Amino acid sequence: MKKPIRVAVTGSAGQIGYSLLFPIANGDMLGKDQPVILQLVELPVAMKGLEGVALELEDCSFPQLAGIELADNPNDGFRNADVVMLVGAKPRGPGQDRSDLIRENGGIFTVQGDAIDANAAEDVKVIVVGNPCNTNALIAASRARRTNKANYTAMTRLDQNRATGQLARKLGVVPGDVRDVYIWGNHSDTMVPDISQGTVNGKAISGLVEADWLGGAFDKTVRTRGKAIIEARGKSSAASAAFAAINHIHDWYLGTGANRYVSMAVPSDGAYGIPEGLIYSFPCRITAPWQYEIVRDLPVDAATKARRDASTAELVAEREAVAHML
Amino acid sequence: MKKPIRVAVTGSAGQIGYSLLFPIANGDMLGKDQPVILQLVELPVAMKGLEGVALELEDCSFPQLAGIELADNPNDGFRNADVVMLVGAKPRGPGQDRSDLIRENGGIFTVQGDAIDANAAEDVKVIVVGNPCNTNALIAASRARRTNKANYTAMTRLDQNRATGQLARKLGVVPGDVRDVYIWGNHSDTMVPDISQGTVNGKAISGLVEADWLGGAFDKTVRTRGKAIIEARGKSSAASAAFAAINHIHDWYLGTGANRYVSMAVPSDGAYGIPEGLIYSFPCRITAPWQYEIVRDLPVDAATKARRDASTAELVAEREAVAHML
Repeated sequence: MKKPIRVAVTGSAGQIGYSLLFPIANGDMLGKDQPVILQLVELPVAMKGLEGVALELEDCSFPQLAGIELADNPNDGFRNADVVMLVGAKPRGPGQDRSDLIRENGGIFTVQGDAIDANAAEDVKVIVVGNPCNTNALIAASRARRTNKANYTAMTRLDQNRATGQLARKLGVVPGDVRDVYIWGNHSDTMVPDISQGTVNGKAISGLVEADWLGGAFDKTVRTRGKAIIEARGKSSAASAAFAAINHIHDWYLGTGANRYVSMAVPSDGAYGIPEGLIYSFPCRITAPWQYEIVRDLPVDAATKARRDASTAELVAEREAVAHML
Repeated sequence: MKKPIRVAVTGSAGQIGYSLLFPIANGDMLGKDQPVILQLVELPVAMKGLEGVALELEDCSFPQLAGIELADNPNDGFRNADVVMLVGAKPRGPGQDRSDLIRENGGIFTVQGDAIDANAAEDVKVIVVGNPCNTNALIAASRARRTNKANYTAMTRLDQNRATGQLARKLGVVPGDVRDVYIWGNHSDTMVPDISQGTVNGKAISGLVEADWLGGAFDKTVRTRGKAIIEARGKSSAASAAFAAINHIHDWYLGTGANRYVSMAVPSDGAYGIPEGLIYSFPCRITAPWQYEIVRDLPVDAATKARRDASTAELVAEREAVAHML
């Protein structure tokens, strides 16, 4: 038997958690032949519900689910974890502004970052799903001494998937025919979907759709989709966020398949002039299992560059708001 | 591109539906290279929530999701469907007894059976998940004129999975090491888990676990697990039921892998003396895509036979309660 991979998930009794854990246990994230041990982390108040989730996971008899461990605190929850998925976060309260939200979540991610660095595997891979995910990841990464800061990432794959889904519908193809669409910047409404390198069955997308639609309905739909889901469902996106997190980790470990590029928010190394250390969504390429590399020197038009600068400015302001935690 | 398979799901805005649709669209049920069109069926009152689910499905950009169609009635919902998954059912109300529940659901499954026979593909495959699933399937099958009665089945795979999960935990192995455990009879607390042919890494289970445990904690846990989940979660099993339904259809189409036997509740042809036509859980083998066969002549000890008879008697009584609908 292959050595099991330990996957820790926070917020695991929540809505996204419930959509996330079963596909992970089913091998959709790390491969059908890869044993997995799930480390489910929740607040003490949610442990009873979490026990129910654990019973249901056991009831699926997933062939390669090698263990289920429950923890009501991050130190136990992250112990020896190879992958940590930070899903739980405080949602925005009524009337609360974004900077208050950022500071409140900052406290959570300081604690969780410390717990990861103290307990997880030295080469742990981290994805932050809980919003504001880029800056939450920045805070967690700032605690890394023993672990590798480059492995602290945030999720913009949901935005990429939304863009891809819109293009597939517009062009009447299955989403698998659409490739190499990616997202720049912050996971917020300043994000920048970029189709300049994208193809549909090998043809450039830019030649197949009208610029008006791209700059109008497409862009708006991708950037404001979260709100549309809440309006229709009465609840935030859960399953689509869960599957995007699975895609992020899957591709990081097993590669992007036929795609050359995939969106990951990762610590900037200064590429494209983005300030070093900001957790920024770039087109990335996977060069080996658990090895990503920011794709450099992709052409970017002036309008995209201006929007990218706006997203950068937003992330710089978020960093300033939490500077005392870094 | 392969021809898409059309999968219709009732109750698709419900809890089980939300856990079921995304893995289907992800290729976990019919194969990663098989295009799928989802036909989502709900009550008119649930259509707004269902639209939210459809948005999220689109947002996953599942490579082989070739279409999402919404219907607020079964005639439109089942049109040309290749697979119909009857998930929606009326849950038991406070103080309601089982026979009242059976009659109330009978009305729903009469209508749905008619709608399948009038609209679905001639070789449609049906799984009933909504309880009481065996008798609901019997009612739906009774309306089949154009479609094939043998293709109306009910789900006992969740019970098999629960049994397998308990054995894996007891023996300290991954569930994939446990094989050929199956369920006889009704999906109710008269069900009979049977480990007589079961193996763990090639060794007979019967030689590895104590008879006391098998007849005691194991049997009780498998038969009453639904209640334990409700107590812990405050809600019925959802994801574990969804993944069991996926297993049922997956194996029916793509085979059982290393397992020789798989539990499916199918119309009895008189095997093992079970009255003809009853929808009864047997060990089945898949001989070709969409071809199951009841495995005959498996040895059964006297205690198991007596319990099987009790489950048969229960199903005969359920059939009598709905005789006027058949």
